[in-house]
Amino acid sequence: METLSTSHAHGGVQGVYRHASLATGTDMTFSVFVPPHAEGARLPVVWYLSGLTCTHANVTEKGEYRRACAELGLIFVAPDTSPRGEGVADDPQGAYDFGLGAGFYVDATQPPFAAHYRMWTYVTEELPALLGAHFPADPSRQSIMGHSMGGHGALTIGLTFPDRFKAVSAFAPIVAPGRVPWGQKALAGYLGDDRDAWRRHDAVALIEDGARMPDMLVDQGDADPFLEEQLQTHWLEEACLAAGQKATIRMQPGYDHSYYFISTFMEEHVRWHAHRLKGL
Amino acid sequence: METLSTSHAHGGVQGVYRHASLATGTDMTFSVFVPPHAEGARLPVVWYLSGLTCTHANVTEKGEYRRACAELGLIFVAPDTSPRGEGVADDPQGAYDFGLGAGFYVDATQPPFAAHYRMWTYVTEELPALLGAHFPADPSRQSIMGHSMGGHGALTIGLTFPDRFKAVSAFAPIVAPGRVPWGQKALAGYLGDDRDAWRRHDAVALIEDGARMPDMLVDQGDADPFLEEQLQTHWLEEACLAAGQKATIRMQPGYDHSYYFISTFMEEHVRWHAHRLKGL
Repeated sequence: METLSTSHAHGGVQGVYRHASLATGTDMTFSVFVPPHAEGARLPVVWYLSGLTCTHANVTEKGEYRRACAELGLIFVAPDTSPRGEGVADDPQGAYDFGLGAGFYVDATQPPFAAHYRMWTYVTEELPALLGAHFPADPSRQSIMGHSMGGHGALTIGLTFPDRFKAVSAFAPIVAPGRVPWGQKALAGYLGDDRDAWRRHDAVALIEDGARMPDMLVDQGDADPFLEEQLQTHWLEEACLAAGQKATIRMQPGYDHSYYFISTFMEEHVRWHAHRLKGL
Repeated sequence: METLSTSHAHGGVQGVYRHASLATGTDMTFSVFVPPHAEGARLPVVWYLSGLTCTHANVTEKGEYRRACAELGLIFVAPDTSPRGEGVADDPQGAYDFGLGAGFYVDATQPPFAAHYRMWTYVTEELPALLGAHFPADPSRQSIMGHSMGGHGALTIGLTFPDRFKAVSAFAPIVAPGRVPWGQKALAGYLGDDRDAWRRHDAVALIEDGARMPDMLVDQGDADPFLEEQLQTHWLEEACLAAGQKATIRMQPGYDHSYYFISTFMEEHVRWHAHRLKGL
């Protein structure tokens, strides 16, 4: 693992790191904020999965999570959204919503994407192991959040590993990729026609199929230009209600899809996670 | 004035605007955050001047000022750092520290820069008038802060208009441009050999020459790679001490020159400004 940069921030250290990933067969870059802590302490970890077109950098620069994470003693980890580099297939038309920057947190089975697009394994297995080896992370206290495509990732991973993630939250998530254009394009492209595989990567379908998580917090702006066609938050509300899945899903008046929205509610999400990770 | 974007943030509105500037003879872009407020209220204004290579966008995205400004009811304004566009002269070698992105908050007298580089007039006259006309700003309650080259701008403007700016603060400012490479290049390029003109744009020289401001807060990281050659904060400390200028100048251990440093101390600066603007 190579350190690309470290900066003091809010009494802790914001770092950016790179390593050769076995899962993706590429170099992968990610950021970690480590709050001020006692020597030898192991700290709870909040995972943040980013949205379409993003890298680790967007939330690292614009997410406004450090102040609360420093106060509450939480590590904050932000992976990239896809493999990158020479030989990594991209959308044939170079679209923003498939290929580079748009891995959708699945292990692709379809050529030419199956070679490198293994973001599920990367985020749920390889990067957690690396984190445990190089940072003062406590694997028994983890939570996960994400934005848009990364909200989809956080919800599906949280539903798949309910014992691992004590809290799951999302900003403007894609809640049912199998039923909206962004998700249909991605799931077909990465997973082919296997609709059972699609359902394992669709939060609403997972809940319908019996998956549960301890608790869920979702914020969605009602001025989000993607709400009606791509996000359709009401499907998640309906699925949670029908299944008895505990959830707080809030429509925030006037807010859009940007980091101005995310950073407004980030502190509240971090505190909600801390409460479930640390009993705070 | 044209609205380029607005987003809800922390209960207020973060906007980006463009207008045809008479001072610079170019279009100029700037950002304004307006906190939640009562209809008809006039609000105190914090000006933020950015550093070399920056536009309005850096602090707008990375500055982490909105939460505190929303709580305290402060407007936050971030201008660009130079004129831009067709016909605007740049550094002959395209260097980062002169020309585009490096206006140094002076009115240039030297060709070819005198044509457009009128950032002093732009920031101290034209943009305040525009702000008063289009936003709920209270001109009787203004303060100013800045980073690096923008810290130089904030200090020199604050020292020149002590009745207008009730608080002046800076992150890692250039305190004596006439005595360091960045500043010598810029002042010679924009103002020529007129050393009296240089002194009017040099915070340490202004203090030596009798200028004063009500109070000053400066934070400087001791891991800042520019500290020794370009910033030399101790000159400001010595000048304030010799002149009896009230000042709090703090060396922050481990911090560098980045927005990770700025965003760490931004809230404290905003509160310090609010105290002087509103008696909070």
